[in-house]
Amino acid sequence: MDKTQKTDILKAVDTLFEDEVEFLAELTSHPSTRGNEQSAQDFIVSELQSRNLDVDRWNVEVDDISHLPGFSPVIGNYDDAINIVGSHHSRQNSGRTLILNGHVDVVPVGPLDMWDTPPFEPRTDDGWMYGRGAGDMKAGLATNLFALDALRSLGFAPAADVYYQSVVEEECTGNGALACLQRGYKADAALIPEPFAEDLVIAQLGVLWLQVSLKGIPVHVAYAGSGSNAIEAAIPLIASLHEMEERWNAPEHRHGEYGHVHHPLNLNIGKIKGGDWTSSVPAWCVFDVRMGLFPGQDMDTAKREIEAVLMEAAQSNDFLRNNRPEIVYHGFCAEGYALAEHNTAMADQAITTLDDAHHMVTGDDLDKIAITATTDARFFGLYADTPALVYGPKAEAIHGFNERVDLESVRRVTQATAIFIANWCGLEPL
Amino acid sequence: MDKTQKTDILKAVDTLFEDEVEFLAELTSHPSTRGNEQSAQDFIVSELQSRNLDVDRWNVEVDDISHLPGFSPVIGNYDDAINIVGSHHSRQNSGRTLILNGHVDVVPVGPLDMWDTPPFEPRTDDGWMYGRGAGDMKAGLATNLFALDALRSLGFAPAADVYYQSVVEEECTGNGALACLQRGYKADAALIPEPFAEDLVIAQLGVLWLQVSLKGIPVHVAYAGSGSNAIEAAIPLIASLHEMEERWNAPEHRHGEYGHVHHPLNLNIGKIKGGDWTSSVPAWCVFDVRMGLFPGQDMDTAKREIEAVLMEAAQSNDFLRNNRPEIVYHGFCAEGYALAEHNTAMADQAITTLDDAHHMVTGDDLDKIAITATTDARFFGLYADTPALVYGPKAEAIHGFNERVDLESVRRVTQATAIFIANWCGLEPL
Repeated sequence: MDKTQKTDILKAVDTLFEDEVEFLAELTSHPSTRGNEQSAQDFIVSELQSRNLDVDRWNVEVDDISHLPGFSPVIGNYDDAINIVGSHHSRQNSGRTLILNGHVDVVPVGPLDMWDTPPFEPRTDDGWMYGRGAGDMKAGLATNLFALDALRSLGFAPAADVYYQSVVEEECTGNGALACLQRGYKADAALIPEPFAEDLVIAQLGVLWLQVSLKGIPVHVAYAGSGSNAIEAAIPLIASLHEMEERWNAPEHRHGEYGHVHHPLNLNIGKIKGGDWTSSVPAWCVFDVRMGLFPGQDMDTAKREIEAVLMEAAQSNDFLRNNRPEIVYHGFCAEGYALAEHNTAMADQAITTLDDAHHMVTGDDLDKIAITATTDARFFGLYADTPALVYGPKAEAIHGFNERVDLESVRRVTQATAIFIANWCGLEPL
Repeated sequence: MDKTQKTDILKAVDTLFEDEVEFLAELTSHPSTRGNEQSAQDFIVSELQSRNLDVDRWNVEVDDISHLPGFSPVIGNYDDAINIVGSHHSRQNSGRTLILNGHVDVVPVGPLDMWDTPPFEPRTDDGWMYGRGAGDMKAGLATNLFALDALRSLGFAPAADVYYQSVVEEECTGNGALACLQRGYKADAALIPEPFAEDLVIAQLGVLWLQVSLKGIPVHVAYAGSGSNAIEAAIPLIASLHEMEERWNAPEHRHGEYGHVHHPLNLNIGKIKGGDWTSSVPAWCVFDVRMGLFPGQDMDTAKREIEAVLMEAAQSNDFLRNNRPEIVYHGFCAEGYALAEHNTAMADQAITTLDDAHHMVTGDDLDKIAITATTDARFFGLYADTPALVYGPKAEAIHGFNERVDLESVRRVTQATAIFIANWCGLEPL
């Protein structure tokens, strides 16, 4: 790419940037928590149609994907789980094809009083846009779309097929991305602008969710000590899970990309609920666990170890010995994925092409990081042999209160994405 | 009372016992959990009216009682908190007046799948009636009513005013009984047939409810260890409360009636809820605590100690130091009460009269027990100088699953109550 073309692309992004921020604000205003993504997807559809992309909108069906590797057990029903793909069909088809992927679902907002302003009324302040999902990852849906817009404003389209994906279910199963694979969307590379501060993710962890249920015989508190309290019976189970967490994090068990990461595998007790009445010894307690796994760590072996840990802890507790915990897996059953180990020529080319694009925009080399979370990249990388580049803007407090995304970072990622598309796919006149 | 009259009363109860069991079954079928007592109270009203009692039905109003000693902070609103009193006005008024008190509210049923049969579809099996509230304490509402019926079937009414009370809120505040006092219902003694197996309760504990709320800054689990997890932050607070519980139970701190009771003061973590998303470090957790107090133990001092214990535990925890727990008192703020220390002639007479009645029915002396729960007796005893006799049938699994009451015990308590009324109030012809 010559310097003029580069400058043209950077300027084209700048020219459209006000529209991009407006798009991001509107998209963020849709409260697209799990099961409520439809209005956000409707908005995406209208934007894709106005750009003459070929829009595919479908309901994710469990029966279509439950037999596929990478499927995660489903929470709730999928009646309202809508995926969107907007396809650009190249006339020349001379370049490499590309998937531009992003997820439209966001995590719950938590107590509203802990937000400075309402989470679904996005606001811009001092160069940041605030709102639930603004960073994770509606900004990425914006950078993907406006990178294409910038090229079009210069009279170009990608010289290879490009699939713009807006998927659901990233935050709990990944089944939205899996459904895209099942529907036949394949390409030479995928770009997922998750908000990792303009670094390239070269390894991501696996994530397993499980729910532990305790049930016992409740009595009036007048007749009971704490030994038969289902809420308190959860405490030694949680402690034993944390001991397992420490073992898994031990240096000798670590994946190479995580050798220097502080405590890469986090076990999180994310939810708890138990008991019905303050003066009744609670007969039930349910808690939800998230545990990280290294790339290459076997999922079934991990499950068996978790089960053994919980049952051993139960065995040494008076209450639990007679009321064995029930373990249900639903939500993430996600393997780890290391782009760094994706040893194909296509993967090398993709990383190099992104490195170049990043350098053209920022003047810096692309930093490569191992992250302690999962992303939808695993589906492309593990199950479709498609190198998946996770590279997006800088955000803060994702999953927290006052989540925000750095708008100048959004601008740079849009520019780098546009250059990446131009170099990866090539360009053809409109 | 001569032997013939005694025999007549016992037989009269027997004759009506089928009706009494039917009344108990119908009353138990009303799912009168807090806020849902109206249909049960409607049923009671129709039964009282059919017996020509003078029915007073009113809404408990917080403003009427919140200034009174014994008031407990209210959970929810009282729009549907209906109290019922049916008054018998004696013509002679030659005897001692009496309150026959019972509560119509029941505790939640918990998970339905842990009941052998639906909790509000009472059934009788092998001499037991099963159902939520059958024992605690709709059987008591039956024994009070059918004791009067038995006397009437013999052509008699009490020779002193008798107030049949069906109150709400016993299970969380006692404000229903307090509202009866405020409305002016007073008598020389009160009988409350709570299900303590035909023993007389001579001491009951105080009960304090509090809710502890933890809030912090949530983050994506990828970035957090357990130190900032609001659910796990509750664990050391619970542990410190149990340490306090052990101190309070120490022999040197015990009330005399509880010297030989195993672990009289129970601290119960009755409810917990926290977190919104398995992969978000939870920013909030709320748990509900019930703690017992000895009779005479000062409520304000107890609250200050609980607060100090929680704040000290918070101080030594990284998360809690920056996110101090919030403590809200709602529900029980109930002092203990010892009938054994109710040193008035009227109290002595009441106990003796009940002792005699119990002996006439069972042939046994009346056992006297100190219980580790509270009852509405405290309002009569502490705030109206009215000796309150807690004496009712045998029940099992109150507050639990498959709650049940022993029907032969119900029969005996009805007989003893009828004899007690005859001797306490005297009798006059209808």
